[in-house]
Amino acid sequence: MIVKKYICFILICFLFACKKDNKAAIKNNVEQNTASHPSLILTQKGVKNIKAQLGTIPLFDKTLEDVKQDVDAEISKGIAVPIPKDFSGGYTHEQHKKNFLILQKAGVLYQILDDEKYAVYVRDMFLEYAKLYPTLPLHPQERSYARGKLFWQCLNDSNWLVYASQAYDCIYNWLSKEEREHLENDLFIPFANFISEKNPQFFNRVHNHSTWGNVAVGMIALVMDNDELLQKALYGLKTDSIAANLKDDDGGFIKNKDQKVGFLANLDEPFSPDGYYTEGPYYQRYAMYPFLIFAQALENKKPELKIFEHKNAVLTKAVEALINLTDKDGEFYTINDAQKGMSYYSRELVTAVDIAYHYGGNNPELLSIAKKQNKVNLDDTGLAVALGLKNNLDKPFRKKSITLTDGPNGNQGGISILRNNNLEVIFKYTAQGLSHGHYDKLSFFMYNNGTEVIQDYGLARFVNIEQKGGGNYLKENTTWAKQTIAHNTVIQNETSHFNGKYSIGSKNHSNQYLFNISEKIKVVSAKENNAYPGTELHRTMAIVTDSSFIKQPFVLDIFNVIGTSTNKYDLPFYYKGQIMQTNFKYTQQATLKTLGDKNGYQHLFVEALADAPNSNLKFNWMHNNVFYTLTSATQATDKIIFARIGANDPEYNLRRDPTLIIRKTNTKNALYVNAIEAHGSYSPVSEFSVNAYSSIAKIETLLNTKDYTAIRITNNNKQSKLFIFSNTNPDKTTAHSITINDNEFNWVGSYTYN
Amino acid sequence: MIVKKYICFILICFLFACKKDNKAAIKNNVEQNTASHPSLILTQKGVKNIKAQLGTIPLFDKTLEDVKQDVDAEISKGIAVPIPKDFSGGYTHEQHKKNFLILQKAGVLYQILDDEKYAVYVRDMFLEYAKLYPTLPLHPQERSYARGKLFWQCLNDSNWLVYASQAYDCIYNWLSKEEREHLENDLFIPFANFISEKNPQFFNRVHNHSTWGNVAVGMIALVMDNDELLQKALYGLKTDSIAANLKDDDGGFIKNKDQKVGFLANLDEPFSPDGYYTEGPYYQRYAMYPFLIFAQALENKKPELKIFEHKNAVLTKAVEALINLTDKDGEFYTINDAQKGMSYYSRELVTAVDIAYHYGGNNPELLSIAKKQNKVNLDDTGLAVALGLKNNLDKPFRKKSITLTDGPNGNQGGISILRNNNLEVIFKYTAQGLSHGHYDKLSFFMYNNGTEVIQDYGLARFVNIEQKGGGNYLKENTTWAKQTIAHNTVIQNETSHFNGKYSIGSKNHSNQYLFNISEKIKVVSAKENNAYPGTELHRTMAIVTDSSFIKQPFVLDIFNVIGTSTNKYDLPFYYKGQIMQTNFKYTQQATLKTLGDKNGYQHLFVEALADAPNSNLKFNWMHNNVFYTLTSATQATDKIIFARIGANDPEYNLRRDPTLIIRKTNTKNALYVNAIEAHGSYSPVSEFSVNAYSSIAKIETLLNTKDYTAIRITNNNKQSKLFIFSNTNPDKTTAHSITINDNEFNWVGSYTYN
Repeated sequence: MIVKKYICFILICFLFACKKDNKAAIKNNVEQNTASHPSLILTQKGVKNIKAQLGTIPLFDKTLEDVKQDVDAEISKGIAVPIPKDFSGGYTHEQHKKNFLILQKAGVLYQILDDEKYAVYVRDMFLEYAKLYPTLPLHPQERSYARGKLFWQCLNDSNWLVYASQAYDCIYNWLSKEEREHLENDLFIPFANFISEKNPQFFNRVHNHSTWGNVAVGMIALVMDNDELLQKALYGLKTDSIAANLKDDDGGFIKNKDQKVGFLANLDEPFSPDGYYTEGPYYQRYAMYPFLIFAQALENKKPELKIFEHKNAVLTKAVEALINLTDKDGEFYTINDAQKGMSYYSRELVTAVDIAYHYGGNNPELLSIAKKQNKVNLDDTGLAVALGLKNNLDKPFRKKSITLTDGPNGNQGGISILRNNNLEVIFKYTAQGLSHGHYDKLSFFMYNNGTEVIQDYGLARFVNIEQKGGGNYLKENTTWAKQTIAHNTVIQNETSHFNGKYSIGSKNHSNQYLFNISEKIKVVSAKENNAYPGTELHRTMAIVTDSSFIKQPFVLDIFNVIGTSTNKYDLPFYYKGQIMQTNFKYTQQATLKTLGDKNGYQHLFVEALADAPNSNLKFNWMHNNVFYTLTSATQATDKIIFARIGANDPEYNLRRDPTLIIRKTNTKNALYVNAIEAHGSYSPVSEFSVNAYSSIAKIETLLNTKDYTAIRITNNNKQSKLFIFSNTNPDKTTAHSITINDNEFNWVGSYTYN
Repeated sequence: MIVKKYICFILICFLFACKKDNKAAIKNNVEQNTASHPSLILTQKGVKNIKAQLGTIPLFDKTLEDVKQDVDAEISKGIAVPIPKDFSGGYTHEQHKKNFLILQKAGVLYQILDDEKYAVYVRDMFLEYAKLYPTLPLHPQERSYARGKLFWQCLNDSNWLVYASQAYDCIYNWLSKEEREHLENDLFIPFANFISEKNPQFFNRVHNHSTWGNVAVGMIALVMDNDELLQKALYGLKTDSIAANLKDDDGGFIKNKDQKVGFLANLDEPFSPDGYYTEGPYYQRYAMYPFLIFAQALENKKPELKIFEHKNAVLTKAVEALINLTDKDGEFYTINDAQKGMSYYSRELVTAVDIAYHYGGNNPELLSIAKKQNKVNLDDTGLAVALGLKNNLDKPFRKKSITLTDGPNGNQGGISILRNNNLEVIFKYTAQGLSHGHYDKLSFFMYNNGTEVIQDYGLARFVNIEQKGGGNYLKENTTWAKQTIAHNTVIQNETSHFNGKYSIGSKNHSNQYLFNISEKIKVVSAKENNAYPGTELHRTMAIVTDSSFIKQPFVLDIFNVIGTSTNKYDLPFYYKGQIMQTNFKYTQQATLKTLGDKNGYQHLFVEALADAPNSNLKFNWMHNNVFYTLTSATQATDKIIFARIGANDPEYNLRRDPTLIIRKTNTKNALYVNAIEAHGSYSPVSEFSVNAYSSIAKIETLLNTKDYTAIRITNNNKQSKLFIFSNTNPDKTTAHSITINDNEFNWVGSYTYN
């Protein structure tokens, strides 16, 4: 530590030495409007404050040194502004992306270090862009519904402007008036007009795309004090002539009738009052950067808007919601389109956490996340966070069992996460989630100790890996990842929820039935009545912690399906790991054929088939050296299907992951009752296997009526517990009394476990 | 650190307090032959020395406390000596296994802590065994060629006696004469006789099984000073009447004609002069414990044998060889039957490293391994290691490119490992490796940064996981894992090497052709002429480090097949990860069928088929966020097969891993020339993909004659390098001169790269 401090001190001395040298350098700006800039993210007051504390706040100093190394390395390579050509992952895409990230950093370094070389670098790169931009046609890749100029889609062009605006603000005073006029007239204003007026189908929406567009225009507007552009950013274009049935690349409608647009609409609509963003955490993470960076700019330039108080402080709530949507390792749950591995270590979340801390009441739990991130924003917000950490104000971020409602008013279903020590069960009963939504009402997935055990597939895309479809969405995202069979929920007659139609799905949402948390049993329950007209889906999930009965916490899952016609129902479990043992015989298929021919079923190869046992199915597997068992109450008429993803996947775009499907045929109603245990462990070093078997001997349905469902769970010591659940009355205070097998049961509230 | 020291001090005070209490306790031994015991692993002198230093050597004290906690927890549970019933993984197996491990530890604690409760525990458990053992028939599980009594095989019974002997030695003096006579007559002597005289097919072999048997008998013989048993242990049974064609459970012959047997034969035969154990590192690890613990006992009791000098100090060499057979994370390479994940963190390697350090000249590199293990033997050897670490004598263990010869005299081929920074290429050209050997001459596998990239399958077994075939070898080990198609080497006409016959394979071995290491190019080459009579196999592998040509080190692989009849040749690459891109079209199969019907081919499903490009095949994949590319010189008549393991696997005993097979048909000769690059990276957090493509533009064979093979490699900048290799003269000093395309090339040594 002492050595580190010493190094820091030397570094800071060096930085100040640089500063002196540069003060001596020739300044090329003709006029110095020193009062006006920077004022967007960095402010003159903020910079002064930062400079005064350099060398005293470790994490800020460390970040500054890291950023300096990054930028210096890029400066030494020289400026490259290539003619746009590639999809994401390709050279020109990645170079322009790198440019905007470095521009923003170089601008900050100029302000904090007073070293003119950074201003020169930013100016010179801007001049290159001002030379190139006016010559550009639409990007040659034609796939997007809103093609950009630097990039294949306006979305990425907007990314560029959001970052570039900050760099412009940082060197604004340093530039000559002529340079500014040149850059604004030949680059920034045409750029802003192109992504707004010229692309209303992109700009005038409620979607993460248009958020980026709105913010890009808004940021440059604030730097230039251009109120006309700012009004467009906040409230959208007044007219747009977007056709009512126009769709984007992902199949989402561009705009509903009478839809409000612009930044404020994008803040009001997709966020629920709990801060859940309807597209899901992967895209919420992506959108948080423009939301928060523009909010910070508005707070600096237009404090009268009180943007951080908007919608009951939804922006800071959203950051805390996002952190609650991560697993033990900080990785986001794969709700809807989502790439696995994205986490709160991303640059967007560094920005988000620092801004939420600074403008959201200095929540000390956010500091513990910033500590893990080990970097901060180089502005007031990052300074505040680094100072908080220096003063050891951080407290652990406590992730609890939580519900996040969906919908602008919080009444379009939601997501619940049940947590118990290492177990995490994510239960989804949201609205559609715009164009990135999947058709998976009442689906769940499960983690143990940060490891996926029952997985959601995520998206079918390799973001920015050019070899895989230019880094863009692959067609299997539509044919597989979005389909209901790709998820752990009930599929009726091999057809996806809402028939896989966005126009229907986007009009509906599931409804929470109840959410109750206690030490012993944490329960969430939701209903879905529109996925299959005429069929009611009602799923109840619980984590039971009752160590004198079953040593480890286990998951109880009751999926009640009530149909009006005779149907076939499938419930898949996308377990991860290797099968250890089953309590039934299955027949491996000599040649592998697909399970079906559409709605995602065409992507599954059938590996083995079985008749279910006429009581309980036991399925025991191992993953990452932990044992798991699924116990399910089955009937002899149920079929068990072992399948694997990968059929009709001619370019190996899908992972070859397995599933077990419980199929109930020729029935109006179906009741799935499942228990999932995580138990024991194996060590390949000691070669000891511990507690490798399930502790549940039997699950039985004692009663299942319209009003009540009663489940008896028996352990290996022949002790039993009864879970009785009211299917029609979620009220916590109602007294219930029923008789089962001549025994009378009385309790208060919607369920009893005893 | 200060806090830790303080805790240590308190702990030691506590331990001494216990000691005092126990000295006051009633001793139940009638006579005290204090001069004689312990003398096996712990010695009276050693114990005195240890006691004198308690509380001063951190790692020793830490280990002592850990062991004390383990044993105290077991003592508090009470003694359980159940009637034998289960296979490994089952209750009775695991309990008896736990018993012998705890017995040994409790004995040590009694000696070091002078706390009689440990002696009482050991005695009482021995008395339970002495009650049970005489009543036992053969173990009820009938699978083994040598069934035990406590366990299903004599092997595990021998494990028990090796550990139990140490415990007996520790409490020998403390026991009464009557107790000792009872234990020896009713337990130890019948036990030793059963695993030797009653099971000659187990005891009189050269095999890791019999090593355990010999050592078990030898250890108890040394405690009891029973020379008759010791002679059996060292030299085997004089007569055994083992039938010549008798085989064990794994298909290995029990005994060759005129085979020497006993411990010394087991030391002489399977170890090469380099310390490589012919079964491979997984079993070497298993066998090292009895080899070294018995050597330590012999050194203490029979120093005149000079066991650590035997065969030019092969035992300590073997420990260093074993460490060289681990990847970056310390996990053993999966040569022959081997379970993945086993590593130098295993208890056997803790023992091995400490003994090798103490008796092998205090190699400071071994201390760095002990430091990672973070525990030591509680005896002289562990004390020496802990003291070395306390005095900071440790140096990093430098794993280099290395050859380990196979065979008692080092002339039966071998294993070479080429290493360069993070790349590790393991090339196998050994003898059969006894009954645990696989049929994979000239096979290779590759790691990058501790991650398998081109994998060897390992064994088909889940050791000690009862659900999977009682934790024993699964039939797929024979039908799949041992077959040649399961490995990365050439298969002729879908038939395994030596026709998959142990009787032939065990008579043959490959031969090293050359092994040369330089900064720029590290080369190993070997020939195999007996796997397919009439066909010569000659493979040459290199790691080329030439950053001005190709930025990262790459692997060059030249497999020359010279046949006398027209054949079909397959060369599989068991890549791990997901396919990114190929430079050829392939056709996904609508229904999946097996690739063949025997010799392992029945376990592969064909997923896709292609015709090879008429120049170079490019196969680009990603694994653990690193990109890899295989470039292979192909002809249009070559076929490419994408296959996956898992057909004819009715109980999901096999992993569903993929392979790419290059098939050359209707040809006498075949030349496979491949390059494998590890390049670039991807981050799912930043979503940046870096250097995702191969840097090799082309590989061409300019010349391929009986005497020479010349390969031209061209990079993306159109620069070329030439690798010319003499196929018939490995001499380092011979001058060569050849003309290719009118250009004359002159060089000295078997190859040139320029």
